Amino acid sequence: MIVPRLIERKRDGGRISDTEWHELINAYTAGNVPDYQMSALLMAIFFRGLDGEEMYALTDAMVGSGATLDLAHVAAPRLDKHSTGGVGDKVSLVIAPLIASLGVAVPMMSGRGLGHTGGTLDKLESIPGFRTDLSLDQAREQIEKIGCALIGQTGEIAPADRKLYALRDTSATVEAVPLIAASIMSKKLAEGLTGLVLDVKRGSGSFITDEKSELALARAMIDLGARRNTPTVALFTAMDRPLGFACGNSVEVAESIAALKGHGPDDLMRVTYALGAEMLLLARKVSRLDEAWPLMREAITSGRALEKFGEIIAAQGGDPRVTEDPRLLPASPARADYLATRAGYVARVSPRIVGHGIISLGGGRRTMEDSIDPAVGFVIPEKPGDYVETGEPIGSIHARDEKGIAVGRKALSEAIIIADSPVVPLDLISHRVTAAGRDKWKAPTE
Amino acid sequence: MIVPRLIERKRDGGRISDTEWHELINAYTAGNVPDYQMSALLMAIFFRGLDGEEMYALTDAMVGSGATLDLAHVAAPRLDKHSTGGVGDKVSLVIAPLIASLGVAVPMMSGRGLGHTGGTLDKLESIPGFRTDLSLDQAREQIEKIGCALIGQTGEIAPADRKLYALRDTSATVEAVPLIAASIMSKKLAEGLTGLVLDVKRGSGSFITDEKSELALARAMIDLGARRNTPTVALFTAMDRPLGFACGNSVEVAESIAALKGHGPDDLMRVTYALGAEMLLLARKVSRLDEAWPLMREAITSGRALEKFGEIIAAQGGDPRVTEDPRLLPASPARADYLATRAGYVARVSPRIVGHGIISLGGGRRTMEDSIDPAVGFVIPEKPGDYVETGEPIGSIHARDEKGIAVGRKALSEAIIIADSPVVPLDLISHRVTAAGRDKWKAPTE
Repeated sequence: MIVPRLIERKRDGGRISDTEWHELINAYTAGNVPDYQMSALLMAIFFRGLDGEEMYALTDAMVGSGATLDLAHVAAPRLDKHSTGGVGDKVSLVIAPLIASLGVAVPMMSGRGLGHTGGTLDKLESIPGFRTDLSLDQAREQIEKIGCALIGQTGEIAPADRKLYALRDTSATVEAVPLIAASIMSKKLAEGLTGLVLDVKRGSGSFITDEKSELALARAMIDLGARRNTPTVALFTAMDRPLGFACGNSVEVAESIAALKGHGPDDLMRVTYALGAEMLLLARKVSRLDEAWPLMREAITSGRALEKFGEIIAAQGGDPRVTEDPRLLPASPARADYLATRAGYVARVSPRIVGHGIISLGGGRRTMEDSIDPAVGFVIPEKPGDYVETGEPIGSIHARDEKGIAVGRKALSEAIIIADSPVVPLDLISHRVTAAGRDKWKAPTE
Repeated sequence: MIVPRLIERKRDGGRISDTEWHELINAYTAGNVPDYQMSALLMAIFFRGLDGEEMYALTDAMVGSGATLDLAHVAAPRLDKHSTGGVGDKVSLVIAPLIASLGVAVPMMSGRGLGHTGGTLDKLESIPGFRTDLSLDQAREQIEKIGCALIGQTGEIAPADRKLYALRDTSATVEAVPLIAASIMSKKLAEGLTGLVLDVKRGSGSFITDEKSELALARAMIDLGARRNTPTVALFTAMDRPLGFACGNSVEVAESIAALKGHGPDDLMRVTYALGAEMLLLARKVSRLDEAWPLMREAITSGRALEKFGEIIAAQGGDPRVTEDPRLLPASPARADYLATRAGYVARVSPRIVGHGIISLGGGRRTMEDSIDPAVGFVIPEKPGDYVETGEPIGSIHARDEKGIAVGRKALSEAIIIADSPVVPLDLISHRVTAAGRDKWKAPTE
């Protein structure tokens, strides 16, 4: 394998063979291929793409570069849910205990905040004492015991992906569909799953904003899942506005706890149930999607879903009393309402501007080394299409101090646009994509 | 300047400003931009190109990254000739003393063998004692004294280009027209020239083999020369077969000496004279191209051109007696004729296969660290279109030993194709390109 010849071949529109991908990724992980060759190859892939075989070989090589979670002896079906990233997206915090409380094992490996989007690990770590840095052995043990673990990508899992991801982030090669698909799936396929549900975000707040690429990404991941015997289903959901009301870290945990008590914002509950139904279907807990809704509602009204969240928190070193008393979560010293500057219809709540606003408040990272303030953020109960009066409180700002309140107010004044006439936002859940094809998503008939 | 944002902008089809190019190249030269970011940018440039302003800003930044040859006080016009690279191309060895003997200063900075092509420095160093590693001060002094210096790219000249070139070579980003143009011109424009003549090679043995890119490269370099007040002219010449008969190092020096005595192969003399005429016109030694041929012929028949070569050799530590007795050049211990395997017309003599054959014999480099055997190579007096009989000697092999002879024989059997009917090779000199446009090249009317 002569690396410059591989780069040249990809650059000129050719393909890299299975063996070559494995050799390349092994050599790169071992430090025998310099970053400057790999970044040139990544940029060539940005322009030339990868075919299905190549994408699978790359993913397979990345999975093989490290250890995998060996859950073969866990009798229960093993399902995970992955989102391509958004603002206010706390579905993982709700769906993991909810689905685990229904007898499905949920080995969930999540990431930190990236760009304008939040990260499940950062949110969980706002729970006092909560640890996400479990070893694979600890995670396996916890899943055997309570059916769920919420962990970060350990150094053991797909080290090639970690190394490649850091390189992509600094060489402007993040936004390539086959690389995104291979990166996500190399981690998910290392979890020993029997099925996977993807939440592909659409709209201005998602990483990929054109419809063609969204579909290509969903299809690529579904194809990769199928090749590894892990049936995979994707829903397209809206990220042209934040999901739910709360955007930040501890404020999102509080909203997740409310959701597990049956008091979550309507959009959050609808997305959670739709994705949860797909997990239950893949787990064969139901034989038709429609049957899943009553099961999930019962898990919430009975308190079993919330109880499971408490078990997970306790198992990972956190204080489970937060599920009863969210005041135990970190609270911001300064708070202020944000008032509508005019009457009219909410035309836009920009997830990107809200996300960057959280970073400005100190609640997100500019570099991977930054530490974050768990208590800051926004709560925005208004959604595009809502009518508001002048002076009506349409959001609240949670900040460290008065300076932060001013920063937050400026962010919301840019993020929330009020107009004379109502607007039509994206469908909250628009499509369902499986190996068989793409269909318009249909709400359950109950 | 945030480098990943620059890469992203170029990747998405945008442009990098003058200030950004200068900041980027300065930071890269100082080691403050990592190679992995630069190689990703280079690959994005391969796909997206650079506009004229960007190419100039890059070139200017590379010139400015180091010292320049200050020849402002040399009264004579200062001309150089640059070839885009080929096999058997020893024009530099003939044209430098020839044109210097006519009162033009020739500060010539050359390179080493690259890929399948030979390098002027390697050829010159086959002359016993010849040193090409002159400092800029030594070169300047020699040019003042004898009108010519034949040197390598010192560490002082365009260090940014040296660093970038090494990176391109190992990241498969050599073949990008704007990068080739900027790299060549950053060195040439550091020579303090009053004019420059380019020999753009065409055909299977050149680095760029499509007509559109050849023209784009010529135009880019002419444009860069014009922006730096260095009038530049390009000729397109054939590299679908080797130039002259000799291909190797000492065998090419011997052929160059023969040429300076008036006994060079016809194609070598025609290309040398055509390029030399352009140099003399730019130097205002003649007012029309036609007038240059008699001047050059006289410089050769009078012995002044050969004498100038002797002066240069002596000034650079070499043994000037080689100009009288080429047997003082390194000679190969093993020699053999290569015989035509059938009767017919020579249809092809592949420069690439011949060039790789020289490398196999030990006369070229696989990596920049390899040392080379100066004595090995080929002499192939047959040209495409020539008729040959079965068993007729059509080439000779110069090798280290009998094993080398076998290697060389195999190379020639693949390089030389004999067919039933005559073929039409590329025009030896096809076009002349100036700032005013491209014209069919016309032989002088004498």
